[in-house]
Amino acid sequence: MYNGFWLFNAIKLKENPNIMQMVRYNCALTVDCVIFCKEGVVLIKRKNPPFQGDYALPGGFVDEDETAEEACIRETFEETGLTIKDPQLAGVYSSPGRDPRGRTVSIAFFAKADNQSLQAGDDAAEATVISDWQNISLAFDHKKIIRDTLKRHQ
Amino acid sequence: MYNGFWLFNAIKLKENPNIMQMVRYNCALTVDCVIFCKEGVVLIKRKNPPFQGDYALPGGFVDEDETAEEACIRETFEETGLTIKDPQLAGVYSSPGRDPRGRTVSIAFFAKADNQSLQAGDDAAEATVISDWQNISLAFDHKKIIRDTLKRHQ
Repeated sequence: MYNGFWLFNAIKLKENPNIMQMVRYNCALTVDCVIFCKEGVVLIKRKNPPFQGDYALPGGFVDEDETAEEACIRETFEETGLTIKDPQLAGVYSSPGRDPRGRTVSIAFFAKADNQSLQAGDDAAEATVISDWQNISLAFDHKKIIRDTLKRHQ
Repeated sequence: MYNGFWLFNAIKLKENPNIMQMVRYNCALTVDCVIFCKEGVVLIKRKNPPFQGDYALPGGFVDEDETAEEACIRETFEETGLTIKDPQLAGVYSSPGRDPRGRTVSIAFFAKADNQSLQAGDDAAEATVISDWQNISLAFDHKKIIRDTLKRHQ
């Protein structure tokens, strides 16, 4: 679907080898945020496909004018009402095929928050703390993300 | 440049709200590999713009059929001849504007290797171990990546 642009780019480069080739986008970058509290993990219920109705970590796509950390803070607030500070890198999840919509790579962060202000945002049907996350269906590879983060941080 | 496809996608979705929206690629994902050895850090001399002629960490773009870890192992071998095992996540570098060619986000890894087999590959003019990396010009934010990794791992 991008052939027209890249052909144009290739011709420009051939005509003038000193100009710089533009980068070719190769994935959709997302963030996911693992927030543990005394009662469990903060999860949202997905409002839209894929995995509609399943629980998932708060997160979403990185905007073009923000870093992954900034996206994590923004998405967590939008989906849960929680303000997190200083999210810590927990892992990078890049297996091809982890998202049925296409190639997404997720940067997972670990954060602490005061869950008193928990409330569902626009993209989430429900934001809640789940203690029994090991035994419910979670979207994407989010169960693995939580397990990995738990091993590393607690 | 992608408008045609996304318009088509939007029309399909309007006609059939049950189909899943494809993800929109939002960055070029790259990997960089920090390899310390007794004498310094393994660096390559860049053959192509941007930062042509500057030293840089071995690395490159993630292919669509591989994870970031696999890309790190492949690119390090291609550019330096070194075989690394089990690269460890060192950081994610996602500041908008860190690459003059467009939005690139780099997953940095930390690895150990036997530098006896060091040799420049196709994309690199030179692969070498530099002890004085603090005082030379490095491409992109690679000096920061090395400093951050050094703080965390040594």
